[in-house]
Amino acid sequence: MANSEAIVRLKTAEGHLRGIQRMMEEGAYCIDVIRQIQAVQAALNKVSTMVLDNHLNSCVITAIRGEDPNERERVLKEIADIFDAGNKV
Amino acid sequence: MANSEAIVRLKTAEGHLRGIQRMMEEGAYCIDVIRQIQAVQAALNKVSTMVLDNHLNSCVITAIRGEDPNERERVLKEIADIFDAGNKV
Amino acid sequence: MANSEAIVRLKTAEGHLRGIQRMMEEGAYCIDVIRQIQAVQAALNKVSTMVLDNHLNSCVITAIRGEDPNERERVLKEIADIFDAGNKV
Amino acid sequence: MANSEAIVRLKTAEGHLRGIQRMMEEGAYCIDVIRQIQAVQAALNKVSTMVLDNHLNSCVITAIRGEDPNERERVLKEIADIFDAGNKV
Repeated sequence: MANSEAIVRLKTAEGHLRGIQRMMEEGAYCIDVIRQIQAVQAALNKVSTMVLDNHLNSCVITAIRGEDPNERERVLKEIADIFDAGNKV
Repeated sequence: MANSEAIVRLKTAEGHLRGIQRMMEEGAYCIDVIRQIQAVQAALNKVSTMVLDNHLNSCVITAIRGEDPNERERVLKEIADIFDAGNKV
Repeated sequence: MANSEAIVRLKTAEGHLRGIQRMMEEGAYCIDVIRQIQAVQAALNKVSTMVLDNHLNSCVITAIRGEDPNERERVLKEIADIFDAGNKV
Repeated sequence: MANSEAIVRLKTAEGHLRGIQRMMEEGAYCIDVIRQIQAVQAALNKVSTMVLDNHLNSCVITAIRGEDPNERERVLKEIADIFDAGNKV
């Protein structure tokens, strides 16, 4: 299930952040540190997309095929909101 | 209708880019130029979100409430794809 | 000179935005519109990097090799600021 | 020193990622998970900027005030590269 893979990737990203801390404690070159942080951010983008994909194919379908227009509006607004927020990180 | 407002905003962004060209032709300070470009990108983020919101509340509802599972899958995949792409610009 | 190439690219982006307006006026599919906007944003990223590169190799060298510590501090802070802002668009 | 503060923030981000894993294991709502991931990415942006600021005010000044034009060119190119990469995550 996508979420279990997402959890594994989060675990990897967590370990990656520990590694970056060690780099910094050992006086690694700053640009190398920034590149590693950017790699973690790229990995987190991937996780967000996986979680969104999972959400779209479960909760969003349920809400949109359901009979509650407010619920439909809510889930659609959430998608636009995280798309907007995603453009800002 | 959201799209007409989006078109107006695109027109504004277009004019803003012309203004930045003039800044550069007149030898404006590079950092000021970059800040103006970043302002255009922020404005374009807003337009994308408006267009997505409009899409979600029209085509996506139609596709998901429809009886064609392939169409449903297609529109949902598109949303995940532009979310992923949005994280990269 | 990098800036003249940057101006040409801004002109191209400007034309691209006009094209997207036409797409919308002709009722193009929303996702295609968003993808085109993201393409413009990617192109603008490239222009910002060119302008920054030009700035680094001119004004920043002059300021840092100069004898005014305030000027040095100012240009360095500007670089950190646009890097931070770049992460948010 | 900026780097010690950056290390503390990386530690916090690491803990935040552990928290998100727990959220997912407990079946948290996908959109809430994505928002938390975006919060971690915003925090990582901040760390990158701090590390860059530190780098600018140490290695970059040394390189640019030094007499090796290749070293100067190298550090300036690195800055443009991470600015470009930062726009893509």
